[in-house]
Amino acid sequence: MYTNSTIVALATPSGAGAIAVIRLSGPESLSICDAVFQAVRFKKISEQKSHTIHLGNIVDDGKIFDQVLVSLFKNPHSYTGEDVVEISCHGSVYIQQQIIQLLLRKGATMAKPGEFTLRAFLNGKLDLSQAEAVADLIASDNESSHQIAMQQMRGGFSNELKLLRMELLNFASLIELELDFSEEDVEFADRTQFSILLDRIEMVLKRLIDSFAVGNVIKNGIPVAIVGEPNVGKSTLLNALLNEERAIVSDIAGTTRDTIEDEIVLNGIGFRFIDTAGIRETQDVVESIGIKKTFEKIEQAQVVISLPNPSKGGTYDTDKMVLEFEQLKNKYPQKTILVVINKVDLLNDSQIDVIKQVMPCSLFISAKNKMGIDELKEQLLSFVNTGVLHNNETIVTNTRHYDSLLKALEEIQKVKFGLNSGLSADLLAIDIKQALYYFGEITGEVTNDELLGNIFANFCIGK
Amino acid sequence: MYTNSTIVALATPSGAGAIAVIRLSGPESLSICDAVFQAVRFKKISEQKSHTIHLGNIVDDGKIFDQVLVSLFKNPHSYTGEDVVEISCHGSVYIQQQIIQLLLRKGATMAKPGEFTLRAFLNGKLDLSQAEAVADLIASDNESSHQIAMQQMRGGFSNELKLLRMELLNFASLIELELDFSEEDVEFADRTQFSILLDRIEMVLKRLIDSFAVGNVIKNGIPVAIVGEPNVGKSTLLNALLNEERAIVSDIAGTTRDTIEDEIVLNGIGFRFIDTAGIRETQDVVESIGIKKTFEKIEQAQVVISLPNPSKGGTYDTDKMVLEFEQLKNKYPQKTILVVINKVDLLNDSQIDVIKQVMPCSLFISAKNKMGIDELKEQLLSFVNTGVLHNNETIVTNTRHYDSLLKALEEIQKVKFGLNSGLSADLLAIDIKQALYYFGEITGEVTNDELLGNIFANFCIGK
Repeated sequence: MYTNSTIVALATPSGAGAIAVIRLSGPESLSICDAVFQAVRFKKISEQKSHTIHLGNIVDDGKIFDQVLVSLFKNPHSYTGEDVVEISCHGSVYIQQQIIQLLLRKGATMAKPGEFTLRAFLNGKLDLSQAEAVADLIASDNESSHQIAMQQMRGGFSNELKLLRMELLNFASLIELELDFSEEDVEFADRTQFSILLDRIEMVLKRLIDSFAVGNVIKNGIPVAIVGEPNVGKSTLLNALLNEERAIVSDIAGTTRDTIEDEIVLNGIGFRFIDTAGIRETQDVVESIGIKKTFEKIEQAQVVISLPNPSKGGTYDTDKMVLEFEQLKNKYPQKTILVVINKVDLLNDSQIDVIKQVMPCSLFISAKNKMGIDELKEQLLSFVNTGVLHNNETIVTNTRHYDSLLKALEEIQKVKFGLNSGLSADLLAIDIKQALYYFGEITGEVTNDELLGNIFANFCIGK
Repeated sequence: MYTNSTIVALATPSGAGAIAVIRLSGPESLSICDAVFQAVRFKKISEQKSHTIHLGNIVDDGKIFDQVLVSLFKNPHSYTGEDVVEISCHGSVYIQQQIIQLLLRKGATMAKPGEFTLRAFLNGKLDLSQAEAVADLIASDNESSHQIAMQQMRGGFSNELKLLRMELLNFASLIELELDFSEEDVEFADRTQFSILLDRIEMVLKRLIDSFAVGNVIKNGIPVAIVGEPNVGKSTLLNALLNEERAIVSDIAGTTRDTIEDEIVLNGIGFRFIDTAGIRETQDVVESIGIKKTFEKIEQAQVVISLPNPSKGGTYDTDKMVLEFEQLKNKYPQKTILVVINKVDLLNDSQIDVIKQVMPCSLFISAKNKMGIDELKEQLLSFVNTGVLHNNETIVTNTRHYDSLLKALEEIQKVKFGLNSGLSADLLAIDIKQALYYFGEITGEVTNDELLGNIFANFCIGK
């Protein structure tokens, strides 16, 4: 997979901006740069120190393409571990194209998606889970996903696994050694110590596997279905929830962000709201289609907010309310259902008391007057174990890692069982090897072209 | 207009990419950077050498935002002439926002559009026409507009004007001196020399003013209306013209470019094709509306390609052809009209001869078989004086410059007239001053807040 070519790509987002950065990496980076770059102050970029910046012109055939800044990173002190040159040019798409075309003519090849990071991995600058974190970091769009990606990129996750793998590897070699002396019936590997290690590994694996539920929520957000009839105040509620967040987003002029109308971020957790048509008993064919769709949408949700519809005059039919709640609960026993009584400002105390009696877990709000909104937010957040996040614990967000962790756990449990049931060293060794394999898959100590291909194909070009 | 603040902005295009660059400029750049940046190798960025790059983390309140590279440019050796720091971070929009927000909290202010370049101008790093060329360079989307912007940015244009202004200024001071000695009736300024200078200035101004026609074409392209009935082969012709260019554009993977369906670039000149419904005598109300629209479109064009419609069987009604041409010619005496006979492969030699006799300037092509396309391209190019471009002469593309040049020419001609008619030195001096004013307006030696405001408002933020 890894060739010794020099690759080139645009590293900044495509389109026009003030500047654009074109990145070269590989053994010919410096000589290719020398072929096209005329510095203001000296002759050759290849003779300059690493981590220096040089002003000059990109010139081909006597024609000046652009005035640029060239940043120089000499191997191994670069992102990829190879010689890297970054050309910071004026941001027109035409200039970007022309310079890249020129570099291609001078011997560079177009970088494949993620190829810079792949090279960083192959050259030992990053392990595989760190490399994957780079893509997560670029994709992160809120505090939590950003924080987890940062932590993973800084090695928090893989360091823990690497240490455990090393210890397991030690025992594995001792057991392999026993095989060499199998006729003498010796035990180099202390079975008690080994058993303790296996328990520790099992505990760590289980914790990491459990963290995936939170990690997944952080990465993908929590889908929340709002069930309620049209006039019940769903969009007012959504706006009340969104209000604050929007203000934060629009704080910085010039940094645009696609507004996602129906997502809010609370303490770094995204909540995606799914609007539904509401549910009620009906004989009407058309309406029953709408209700079927509501059910489909509830299927996708993790939390359901049910907004009962008050009768005319603002009072609530508590029997109907309880019935609807029971129906939902029976149909979706796995889902968290939150009954929210809107327009509480229209209710008197005795009415509130009645509702509290029949629906003790319900929340009272007034979306219009922004009463009870903070309580609702807290309630939503309470469904996520954000404690894990704020304790700076390692969290697994990557399905590939989750998969390997599950497999590793299975193998470790096999080893434990084998150990306890007095399995012979040669059979133990096989299970240990398999466990080591899955550990290595996460950090990239064990890898293959197909795996790498899959991982890096999801990167953008230039990274 | 110029405050002593430290400004910050995203310098790369907005959106997610592998990396993004955030630029700080101003007296506090280094101290603000020191407040948020923890380098891997040392304590303070402000103590490092200019033009060096440093790896480290952006940290606030103990929390790591991102691992970044910081490039350092110490005043006056930077784009703006001030202390400049460029932070190259991971390209997620979230990270960009967070870092910019952090820098704002630490005392930076958000840069206005073009404010970096404005500061470069105010600090004498660029003159005004060079500053304007920066925006042109970023906007350039083909070879010619790019080349002209490059030339202007490198001072080709303003250097010439500055020299002439200096010479004119010399004479102006000599004439002013005469005024001080007005009672003695002396002549410090050699009137013959002055007359020669005025002729030279007039010539240069006229050349530059004339170049605006080409400059405008290069900057904005030439609008070409294709007139012809639906089945006459307009889109086949357009495709035949576009074919080659498209291949070039799609050459580089990863560098996207908005495809402009109906524009081709020949020798660096853009030709924008305007499709029309065609013209023929009709009583039909609906059709006459279509024809009215056709005429409106022709109004916008500089060149009109007329594709006569062959009768059934492929032969042409030459009388009708001549009539249509004459009608067009009479209606638009100012426009270049090119008659293109398509489907020439269906004609025999004698038919071609007949057409050649009645329409000697017509071109014979087969859009489908790509016959005659090169000749058509050459014909289109012949309408533009590209010689000017390729002789590396300075070309004016900016309406503001054009305007000032016209005014300067007018004043110079007044001075000439005054000189020839023996106008008194004090009156001469007034006209010379006015001419000097217009010269200075182009290069920015004369300026005011409103002018600068107008110019830099058209820049993007971050430039």
